[in-house]
Amino acid sequence: MMKIAIDAMGGDHAPQAIVAGVVQASQTFDDVHFLLYGDEQQIAPLLPEGTRNVTIHHTTEKINSDDEPVKALRTKKDSSMVLAAKAVKEGQADAMFSAGNTGALLAAGLLIVGHIKGIDRPALMTVLPVLDQNRQFIFMDVGANADCKPENLNQFAVLGQYYARFVLNNQQPTIALLNNGTEATKGNELSKKAHTLLAANPHIHFVGNIEARELLTNPSDVVVADGFTGNAVLKTIEGTAIGLLQSIKNTIKSGGVTTKLGGLLVQSSLRGLRDNLDYAQHGGAVLFGLKAPVVKTHGAADEVAVFHTIKQIRTVLQTQVIRDLSEYFEEKSNEI
Amino acid sequence: MMKIAIDAMGGDHAPQAIVAGVVQASQTFDDVHFLLYGDEQQIAPLLPEGTRNVTIHHTTEKINSDDEPVKALRTKKDSSMVLAAKAVKEGQADAMFSAGNTGALLAAGLLIVGHIKGIDRPALMTVLPVLDQNRQFIFMDVGANADCKPENLNQFAVLGQYYARFVLNNQQPTIALLNNGTEATKGNELSKKAHTLLAANPHIHFVGNIEARELLTNPSDVVVADGFTGNAVLKTIEGTAIGLLQSIKNTIKSGGVTTKLGGLLVQSSLRGLRDNLDYAQHGGAVLFGLKAPVVKTHGAADEVAVFHTIKQIRTVLQTQVIRDLSEYFEEKSNEI
Repeated sequence: MMKIAIDAMGGDHAPQAIVAGVVQASQTFDDVHFLLYGDEQQIAPLLPEGTRNVTIHHTTEKINSDDEPVKALRTKKDSSMVLAAKAVKEGQADAMFSAGNTGALLAAGLLIVGHIKGIDRPALMTVLPVLDQNRQFIFMDVGANADCKPENLNQFAVLGQYYARFVLNNQQPTIALLNNGTEATKGNELSKKAHTLLAANPHIHFVGNIEARELLTNPSDVVVADGFTGNAVLKTIEGTAIGLLQSIKNTIKSGGVTTKLGGLLVQSSLRGLRDNLDYAQHGGAVLFGLKAPVVKTHGAADEVAVFHTIKQIRTVLQTQVIRDLSEYFEEKSNEI
Repeated sequence: MMKIAIDAMGGDHAPQAIVAGVVQASQTFDDVHFLLYGDEQQIAPLLPEGTRNVTIHHTTEKINSDDEPVKALRTKKDSSMVLAAKAVKEGQADAMFSAGNTGALLAAGLLIVGHIKGIDRPALMTVLPVLDQNRQFIFMDVGANADCKPENLNQFAVLGQYYARFVLNNQQPTIALLNNGTEATKGNELSKKAHTLLAANPHIHFVGNIEARELLTNPSDVVVADGFTGNAVLKTIEGTAIGLLQSIKNTIKSGGVTTKLGGLLVQSSLRGLRDNLDYAQHGGAVLFGLKAPVVKTHGAADEVAVFHTIKQIRTVLQTQVIRDLSEYFEEKSNEI
């Protein structure tokens, strides 16, 4: 039985959306036990009679979205997020989930769950859909490390490769560096040095630089970037896609009768596209490189997003990815 | 009479698209003289009889898109781009235009035209449309400086403010820093230090951080970023917008009869949206902070894009923005 610790109080729609997603997951998967951390008064009524494999661990303290991350961990030791992280650290759970304060979750991952020996900086990893193709790609770091060293990016590549192999069943994933030009000599000091390290890394299939313009249409299987740029690029994709689809809606709504009629006729097709772009269905962002998966989903996550993220965590736990990753870095540490 | 030096040989569709754009501009504006640098054999036949205010400066040498920038400047002294830059340096022209090798153009701007005293690093600046609003915002640096210091970003803010005031007629533009969080404490080392400088700058109306998610829907009038992040974000916007619109087209084309009919009905409205997003109509990217405007447009630029970029250069030259900017930084240098 896999055990997942859930921060039931994090996110804009907590605990309702979180608990609803967990209930759906508990009805779908019979090999997962859920440890729900949060206010029992609020959570218990949300569990339908006969719900199995769910245990509530009561606490009334919680970390808010505007709390200063490290300070919140220190002062809110009984918060739902901290207790969930501690459950992982102490072996009561195999992974943790939260839709709460991202900074606090990253800090909880690093400071409570702890990183795999030999990995200097775990990265926040997300899986994005490729437009008009039935495939996905891994993009990291999308925000765990605002300042990176070249070696961090080289490690991100290995992390991404393991995730692609074990979780996405892609045995020989291609890996590219996000950069502002395709030539090896392009970029800032960091990306130039990272390029050199990646090109010399015998353990990965490095295919060179990728420009952000190609990201959604022609990416390699894994794309690595520093956490500042990766975060900006991910948010730009979201902002542009959402803004554009909204703008199309407005354009159709403000059009004449012909345009409105046309809008009705294309509606269902566009909904399909929106669903394909809906990151909720592609799971959450995994803080990867830790001793156990710590997974974040959008603060605005609804029941569906929570369910899909739990499904993703289950898939990760079913593989031996963390064990093998630990062995790889263990051996590498010994080499040096 | 304003004089604009044109690199007639740079870009994917040179010299045809470049010359066609210049011809259109010469027919529209009677206060601009164009100095066309390039192969007279190819250019002369493209000028309709009676074309006024256009002089051809013959050269057969040109810089290719894959030439190494600084080396190309050194070895191709008679290239159309270098000659156009020299014309500006020597006062024969007031500004220059190219659709050619971006790196080489940036180098030509810095090394031949030269920067305004007191400005350490000129920035590549672009004007982008805000979705569903009849306004634009200035975004910089989109690629001139892959590595920036905090003070560079503080100077970019002043550069953007001057451009907004003089060229876009926005007297008190708001200025924000692109960052991965809205709080002042968010970001990498560079953005945190830049935030402090910007907040303390008495000459600008700084409104704090902006996240990339808000860029197209709710930006300040000027948004500053380092050239690596700015470049990645700009290319992400382009890639996401183009990819999404293409994907919508594909979705409609592969749909049933109803969807196809709907597609026909909404077509003209969507074309309006695409035109609004068409960066060609918003002019080129200005390397700003130099003694004269050096303006780049897309390599793929067509006649329309060339025309609009020339129109933009004319607007810049009609103002006193470069003179006033020079005075500001001159005074600032004297203060210290």
